[in-house]
Amino acid sequence: MSTQEKISVSVIRRLPRYYRFLGRLKDTGVNRISSKELAVRMGLTASQIRHDLNCFGGFGQQGYGYDVPRLYDEIGNILGLSNNYNAILIGVGNLGKAVANHITFADRGFSLNAIFDKNPALVGTQINGIEVQSTDDLKEYCEAKKPQAAFLCLPYEGVEPLAEILYNAGVRAFWNFSHFDLTLKYPDIVMENVHLTDSLMTLCYRMSEQRDVL
Amino acid sequence: MSTQEKISVSVIRRLPRYYRFLGRLKDTGVNRISSKELAVRMGLTASQIRHDLNCFGGFGQQGYGYDVPRLYDEIGNILGLSNNYNAILIGVGNLGKAVANHITFADRGFSLNAIFDKNPALVGTQINGIEVQSTDDLKEYCEAKKPQAAFLCLPYEGVEPLAEILYNAGVRAFWNFSHFDLTLKYPDIVMENVHLTDSLMTLCYRMSEQRDVL
Repeated sequence: MSTQEKISVSVIRRLPRYYRFLGRLKDTGVNRISSKELAVRMGLTASQIRHDLNCFGGFGQQGYGYDVPRLYDEIGNILGLSNNYNAILIGVGNLGKAVANHITFADRGFSLNAIFDKNPALVGTQINGIEVQSTDDLKEYCEAKKPQAAFLCLPYEGVEPLAEILYNAGVRAFWNFSHFDLTLKYPDIVMENVHLTDSLMTLCYRMSEQRDVL
Repeated sequence: MSTQEKISVSVIRRLPRYYRFLGRLKDTGVNRISSKELAVRMGLTASQIRHDLNCFGGFGQQGYGYDVPRLYDEIGNILGLSNNYNAILIGVGNLGKAVANHITFADRGFSLNAIFDKNPALVGTQINGIEVQSTDDLKEYCEAKKPQAAFLCLPYEGVEPLAEILYNAGVRAFWNFSHFDLTLKYPDIVMENVHLTDSLMTLCYRMSEQRDVL
């Protein structure tokens, strides 16, 4: 779509949140909503919502509001959620289990097709219907199945050797829960980090300072 | 500290990352480092590092570099990591277990003192040495023990009734893994959100667009 070129980085970062709110509205049968109502529900201002959503073209009409299902679908398209990227998950400690069990990947652009762990006691067990394979077989799997994304639910120490295998097999996208910064070694990858302890330390800072640093 | 007033929001958001890198340097026996070296290790520019760290006063000296242990301690102080805030965790699915087992709270400003779940089969079990209590006892516990922060490892649907109990018992800080936006109802709280699926959708967008929106 032609307007997409103009969408700013900060708007993109807010898209998943709009998508969630609109999805919830849609599920409860709301077909249209004014920027004012949406602003109240999302804790934003109406003018910010109008500014953000205008980036996607004519989904809001004066006196009518936004067409909820259309806007939801359009944001999903912009996010690329129908891509069904071939993904694997590595590391099935509690965090890996939480990710594998509780996230509906198909709705977020991915198909989780394989799970790996180095612990022999876990290899062969099933997680959400997927059999856990040994990381010893990771290289062979990646060369055969060509996954596009890897979800790294590993501690810092475990990442580097596996990342090398993944990168050499062509994986260029990583959802990274470790503190290992892969982009320093592989600048051409797409990496999205989840740093739980950074978030916790930010909470601590905000409690001690009682400042809003959102 | 007097310089603290001038620290910008964006610098604060980067503090946990500096803290992690400096901690790793300290642990490997590095006592001083130049902004240039630190920049290479962190994937930043030397001038950004000088700008950020100058906010905290004279820890860098020309021709010497940064005093790693002092800067590490000072950033820890600014983050308030010695506060030892009284915290509880609610919801011990896989995510709650991962959080309770793998995060060293004491180093991040918190003491995890109680864990709750609504599932009777889990009540009485131990997680990381802490006995799981029933959410039926949450109100009484909070009134007696006055926790300052609650870690919500719950699905959307579970949050609202428990949040009301917590808020009424004086809890004003939340580490929130659900998509339930507590600040709409309680604007005076401090809330730090971890939205895993937003992060996953952003990865999808970046893969489909191959753009850098970090």
